[in-house]
Amino acid sequence: MSSVHYQRVALIGLGLIGSSLAHVIRRERLSDVITGYAKSAETRATAKRIGLADEIHDSAAAAVRDADLVILCTPVGAYGKVAEETGPHLKRGATVSDVGSVKGAVVRDVAPHLGKDVHFIPGHPVAGTEQSGPESGFAELFTNRWCILTPLPGADAAAVARLEKFWRACGSNVETMSPSHHDMVLAITSHLPHLIAYNIVATAADIEDVTNSEVIKFSAGGFRDFTRIAASDPTMWRDVFLNNKEAVLETLGRFSEDLSVLQRAIRWGDGDTLFNLFSRAREVRRGIIAAGQETAAPDFGRQPGKK
Amino acid sequence: MSSVHYQRVALIGLGLIGSSLAHVIRRERLSDVITGYAKSAETRATAKRIGLADEIHDSAAAAVRDADLVILCTPVGAYGKVAEETGPHLKRGATVSDVGSVKGAVVRDVAPHLGKDVHFIPGHPVAGTEQSGPESGFAELFTNRWCILTPLPGADAAAVARLEKFWRACGSNVETMSPSHHDMVLAITSHLPHLIAYNIVATAADIEDVTNSEVIKFSAGGFRDFTRIAASDPTMWRDVFLNNKEAVLETLGRFSEDLSVLQRAIRWGDGDTLFNLFSRAREVRRGIIAAGQETAAPDFGRQPGKK
Repeated sequence: MSSVHYQRVALIGLGLIGSSLAHVIRRERLSDVITGYAKSAETRATAKRIGLADEIHDSAAAAVRDADLVILCTPVGAYGKVAEETGPHLKRGATVSDVGSVKGAVVRDVAPHLGKDVHFIPGHPVAGTEQSGPESGFAELFTNRWCILTPLPGADAAAVARLEKFWRACGSNVETMSPSHHDMVLAITSHLPHLIAYNIVATAADIEDVTNSEVIKFSAGGFRDFTRIAASDPTMWRDVFLNNKEAVLETLGRFSEDLSVLQRAIRWGDGDTLFNLFSRAREVRRGIIAAGQETAAPDFGRQPGKK
Repeated sequence: MSSVHYQRVALIGLGLIGSSLAHVIRRERLSDVITGYAKSAETRATAKRIGLADEIHDSAAAAVRDADLVILCTPVGAYGKVAEETGPHLKRGATVSDVGSVKGAVVRDVAPHLGKDVHFIPGHPVAGTEQSGPESGFAELFTNRWCILTPLPGADAAAVARLEKFWRACGSNVETMSPSHHDMVLAITSHLPHLIAYNIVATAADIEDVTNSEVIKFSAGGFRDFTRIAASDPTMWRDVFLNNKEAVLETLGRFSEDLSVLQRAIRWGDGDTLFNLFSRAREVRRGIIAAGQETAAPDFGRQPGKK
């Protein structure tokens, strides 16, 4: 049996990431048994109907029993409560990880509830779609994406290496960093972009001179792309912003400062400042395509109705 | 011969929109002859090599000779010069239109150079991709997108109707509005989104605590989608911002105001404000999908390397 294999994996939360994990664990035969828990009865019923896991439990405590890998996949705001409920029921030597988009707050909320005989290794697969719920998952979600692990000082090296292998078996690349560095990296690459997208959609919806029907009709001019990212799960994102306050406020301050420079350039007709900044942005784009994190296909031109 | 048909169509500028027009005009047989002009010798050579038009001219004045439809497809900052050069060479009764993303400034720059025996009908197909140049065009670009026409008071109704039919034959829906209303609608649906996208890419590139390589690696968390829109042509976009100053500054002011409310909600831990705004954004997204301007497929999860 490969060292990647866990006997029982418990997925606490069965939304986009939890259900995608269920699919890839099964496809890659990474565990004998998958157990699942979701707070909502409706989600549990759906998960049972589509056969997402081998066992679906009504309580997180029951789901984690005898599991040697527990992965928290709920919105991060619920982690403290889940850790408190499941902590006493964890198997000795189990690994507890998660998929949350913030890491400092997760360490703060989860660690106090776990015994010393449990390996707590926070994680974050940087992957997702704008959809949510137990039916939105698919096994390929993690392919060629990065999973960040933020083990704490003194973490068990063998347990970390095993979890790292698990994520590689899911198709991911793996990188290790501190929780605080993770939170700053994600603030700029993920949290701020989502905040900006949510904000511009609201600004557009409120503008009096332009009807909502016009905003929708003419959205192919660029706005459409913001609504895609702004369609992500509201509960998950509320919790992200409440739990990565400092890094988000820091990057938001820089964003606003930079935006003032552009605003002034527009007001004073300074075309060179605009052109130079716009040209720099193209270079970053080329880097992302070269790194395999994006395709070069002209996606703006995507055809309506194509699934 | 259908009234959509023009004998000679002149495309002044052979980038993404000009070359897409050449393809769709040919596919739909909307003219007998397509003539083209581009400022750069390299673009003209490429256009000749790929057979983009029937005639490629070294001067705009030569390209418009005898044309009954002239479409300006250069960045809008070049329109005044092009209109001045071509004005004296236009055929009596010709229609002059354009594809520029701003309309007030186009009327200001172009109209003074055109004789009274020419029909000037500004237009804007709200369609595009993040790519540019004579080889980026494709005939389907305008399919099910909206083309906005902004005829001036007293415009010839028959000439407007004919141009409208032309755009419908290109696959577009057509709507008519005033230049100033166009400029406000596009400021919020297209210009502001591009400005914000360019700005966040620059903010991310400059942040000291996060390396550019990290920004690129972890871009699948949301940032990636902004770089796509920020990869659009810098010259075109510089000209847009210089020529729609008032509407862009107005929408930018609202955006910043709204962003301050979110910033405060994050600072004070006001989860309800965040959740309510995030939920509203989902509704706008649903409207765009229902209107056929976007697909519901989970595009965030797009696979690397897929073309």
